[in-house]
Parts: sequence; C-alpha cells; structure tokens
Amino acid sequence: MSEPRLVEVRRNVLKQNDVIARDLREQFRNAGVFVVSLVSSPGSGKTTFLEKTLTQLQPQYRVAALVGDLATENDAVRLARSKAPVKQITTGTLCHLEAAMVESALKEWDVGQLDFLFIENVGNLVCPSAYDLGEDLRLVLLSVTEGEDKPLKYPHMFRAAAVVVLTKTDLLPHVGFDVGECLANVRRVNPAARVFQLSVRNGSGVPELCDWMASQTRVARA
Amino acid sequence: MSEPRLVEVRRNVLKQNDVIARDLREQFRNAGVFVVSLVSSPGSGKTTFLEKTLTQLQPQYRVAALVGDLATENDAVRLARSKAPVKQITTGTLCHLEAAMVESALKEWDVGQLDFLFIENVGNLVCPSAYDLGEDLRLVLLSVTEGEDKPLKYPHMFRAAAVVVLTKTDLLPHVGFDVGECLANVRRVNPAARVFQLSVRNGSGVPELCDWMASQTRVARA
Repeated sequence: MSEPRLVEVRRNVLKQNDVIARDLREQFRNAGVFVVSLVSSPGSGKTTFLEKTLTQLQPQYRVAALVGDLATENDAVRLARSKAPVKQITTGTLCHLEAAMVESALKEWDVGQLDFLFIENVGNLVCPSAYDLGEDLRLVLLSVTEGEDKPLKYPHMFRAAAVVVLTKTDLLPHVGFDVGECLANVRRVNPAARVFQLSVRNGSGVPELCDWMASQTRVARA
Repeated sequence: MSEPRLVEVRRNVLKQNDVIARDLREQFRNAGVFVVSLVSSPGSGKTTFLEKTLTQLQPQYRVAALVGDLATENDAVRLARSKAPVKQITTGTLCHLEAAMVESALKEWDVGQLDFLFIENVGNLVCPSAYDLGEDLRLVLLSVTEGEDKPLKYPHMFRAAAVVVLTKTDLLPHVGFDVGECLANVRRVNPAARVFQLSVRNGSGVPELCDWMASQTRVARA
C-alpha cells in the first residue's frame, strides 16, 4: 500500500514518461499536427464519438487515430469504417497509455501528413491522468448515465483535462441526471474546463465540438 | 513502460497483498461473516445497488459495508441512509483497494457480529482485478449503457469475478444493447460466471440476487 519503493519507482517511470512526452510534443508541433487525447470510464462513448469525429473532420482535414485497450482490436476495426488511418495499441494488463507506446506506435507514420491525431486511452478514470502523452488537448468524456458526482470522485482526471464532454445526452429523459449539478461539480475541481454536451446518437453537439477543435488547431499553429 | 524494476516491485506488492488477504479470509471464515466485493466502471451503479441490497438484507441479516473512492465521503453518506454501519476508505491517487486497507478499516469493528460484509472497490475495470481482498465472492457490475464488448476488453476483471451483474436493465429500451451478445462475451472469458440482470430503479432482479447471496452464505458455512 504505502510501499516506499513502489512509490519511488513509479515516480521514476513518470519522470521518464514526461521526457518522452516532451519530445513527442515538440515533434507534433514541428510537424504541424494537432493532437487530441480522449479519456473516460469504460463505456462512456469514446470510440463512438471518435468514429463520428473522424468522419466529420475528414472532408476538410487529414485525420488519424491511435486507440488503446487492454485486449481486442475491436476499436480499430470500428474506427476503420471512417476510412481514416487507425492503429490499435494493446496494453495487456497495463491500465493506461504511456508516451513511449505512442512514440512506438507512430514509428511507421509520417505525422507531418496529418492535421489531427486522436489518441483514445484505455477506459479508466484513474490511472491515465498522470501520464502526459504529448497531446495538445485532453478531453475527458462523461456519459449522463454515470452520475453527476464523478468529477468530485475522480478529481485528478477532471483536473488533468482541458475539456469535459458530456455524452449520451439523448438519454437524459430516461436517467435522473442533473446537468446543472454535474457542471457545478466540474467547476469545483476545474474552474477553467470548457464543457460540451452532445449525443452521437442524435448528432446534437458534435459539429460544435468539431468546429471548436478546428479553431484550436489554428490557435496552436498561429 | 516495460520498466523491469516497476514490474518486480509490483510483483512484491501483490505477493504481500496476497499474504494479508489470506489472513483476512481466515479471519472472516472464523468470524462466520460472508464477504462480497463489488467492482465495476465508474457509474455502473455499485453504490445504488449496494444501498438497495443493504436495505433488502437488513431485516434478516446483520450487514455492513466498506466503500473505496479516490476522494469524497459521498458513498458512505449515501449508504448510511440504509442504517447499516458503513465506513469510507479514501485512497487518494490509488486506483484500487488493497487487503491492507481493508484490514486497517476493520480494526474498530467486530466482524463476528456480522452476517454480510460488502466491500465496494474504486470504480475501475482494470487495476482492482489483481488484488485479492479476502472476499468470498466478487461481483463485477456492468450497466447496459456501457456496451456488450466490455467483457472482451477488460478480460482480467471479468475472469476474476464469480458473478456478473448486468445493471440498469430499465434502460434497455433506450440503448442499443444486445443482452445475448454480452452474455456470449461473458462466457468467452469466464464460462463459469453466474449472471444476474437487474434494475435498482424498477426493482427487478434485486431480490433474486439477494436470495442467491443468502444461499451462498449457507454454502460457505456448511
């Protein structure tokens, strides 16, 4: 539990991760690619959102995605339907992506040929929060079926993301979810977070978030 | 990533955890208390299920609960409404409960006075799978909003649980969730798992699971 050697070794791994993430970030900046990572609980709708986003951005932008999972290539198969280049990172028992995995997965790709690179993390609201992947923007997704209290119960993750995306809003009439209370909880742990609400099922809110991300690439490159 | 010292130290922590868990299990057996742990993604309905279960079992059984979270005492406050003894374990940044935390949380309690002890883990479908808490029974909850593929994507957790509980079945008419496909996925990773389906909101399935758990205490003590 409070095993000091584990804490020490974990700190070293984090330091090592930060060094690689810094290199990645510089590489992404030089290549002119805007990198967005997605984190959430399992089943919050990351892959469905990503499939929709890749499809929506593709007419105008060159997009690609890396997707992390413990097991299966299901997500890569689903995302391939968008026709965008997609690569699966299978982590085995590891509960999060690390910068070295991103670096290694990108070896055969020329990121200079991309406008957007999306990185979908393992579904986990805890461990991925500590690992910088060199991304420009981190989105945390929270579905309206999960309860308003999650920002307070997983504060590290909600603090480590610049954007909070409330997903599955089409289910609002069927679940006792108080959007106002959830947003107040988001503000308590991360007052600067930008919040979007959307439903991939009925399409509402997706174009607004895509437009906003596109505007951010222009800011990043200015 | 493949930092060998981290793997080695983690292995030692697991070994140490197993020793404490073995002691706990013996202590629980001697005390005649049946211990059930709950794991799931954040927002699958562990606390709501537990509140209902504590209330349902209480007329006949002496019940208590330990609840793990990174932050907040919200769950303990919610569960206290059941009038059962409840204690919160706040883990800080740690993504799972360990046997030593359970041991320490139980110091002031006489488990010999209990028939059932429930342990609600941190919401996380990855990391808690490796940590034995000395429980008799581990339940993994999966809500029908999370998708049928979760048993395949988080196989370690679904293998490490004897019981799979499909929750929020009242939402089935509003989500595209194929129960048959999900059960087939459960069987692929854990053919021996017992599956229950329930909705705390409309009450269906909860008495059946409570009755079954009660029958298991009799088996364990026989």
